[in-house]
Amino acid sequence: MIRILFAPAGCPLLLHHSEKLPHEESCEWRPYPCPCPGASCKWQGTLEAVMNHLALAHKSITTLQGEDIVFLATDIELPGAVDWVMMQSCYGQHFLLVLEKQERIEGHQQFFAAVLLIGSRKQAEGFAYRLELNGNRRRLSWEAVPRSIHDGITSAILNSDCLVFDAAVAHLFAEAGNLGINVTISMC
Amino acid sequence: MIRILFAPAGCPLLLHHSEKLPHEESCEWRPYPCPCPGASCKWQGTLEAVMNHLALAHKSITTLQGEDIVFLATDIELPGAVDWVMMQSCYGQHFLLVLEKQERIEGHQQFFAAVLLIGSRKQAEGFAYRLELNGNRRRLSWEAVPRSIHDGITSAILNSDCLVFDAAVAHLFAEAGNLGINVTISMC
Repeated sequence: MIRILFAPAGCPLLLHHSEKLPHEESCEWRPYPCPCPGASCKWQGTLEAVMNHLALAHKSITTLQGEDIVFLATDIELPGAVDWVMMQSCYGQHFLLVLEKQERIEGHQQFFAAVLLIGSRKQAEGFAYRLELNGNRRRLSWEAVPRSIHDGITSAILNSDCLVFDAAVAHLFAEAGNLGINVTISMC
Repeated sequence: MIRILFAPAGCPLLLHHSEKLPHEESCEWRPYPCPCPGASCKWQGTLEAVMNHLALAHKSITTLQGEDIVFLATDIELPGAVDWVMMQSCYGQHFLLVLEKQERIEGHQQFFAAVLLIGSRKQAEGFAYRLELNGNRRRLSWEAVPRSIHDGITSAILNSDCLVFDAAVAHLFAEAGNLGINVTISMC
């Protein structure tokens, strides 16, 4: 039996060697990475330090107050992989709204949108979010439990466990190259 | 000025030669093709004859009554291109529900779902439909005006102007390989 890597941070578990790695992947005491999409920022720290890090190192992220806001992504037809990020503050919590454009399959541009709670997985379970595209007598919507920033957005995109739509759908809902996504957060 | 191809059917227009072909594509007097997906049935006729044709030649299509029904697609993991079709009857009209699995992009299976009114474009404008996938604290929904069977579903799929989701999303919502899609029709 050995202690895991994050024992000094507080994890009380003693595990067999074979269980150590799988547990460390999901350990609640594992440091939180910077939640900004893309791997350019290497910061990691405690949950309490994340907001401070964002305020210092990612000043350009806009924050909107309220349970029901519009996340406006501009110039969605810009070529290549692009991220749009903003923050929503409600219920005394901060949520990160992420829209990513990727070419996961060559020649097929897709958009992936999800909401992450700046909090633990357990806290995230207490909320739900809805993303909605509206226009021209059409509506596309996705509802789910927010991800914790501990998990990040990469696996959600890989598993299509988020709002997924292609360039043709984006075009149906966009106005002058900008896409407005209605975001509603609720408590469960 | 010449009369168009469907003048004998009732179209009163006299058009220049250059306008003839584009108009014939969308002419309300053009015969209705068989609305079943795929091009295997070559039947065409008047709108009034469509229901009779379906009853005689496509007996296997199930009809459910009501504004709010569940369209159950079984064995969605069957390989290759597959169509699921059923009929919904409400407001004194018949609607065709279609789910198609295609590999529009090689190596990337996608599902396309839409509702078609067995009626003209003008009649279709008076309705709206909602398709909804539910399960595991997730919901994906699409709302739009039904297509007329005069237009068919091919262009809707080509333009992603319908509910589009990939195999991973289908897997998120399926139970034992079957996918239940809630369909709601409303009058505008």
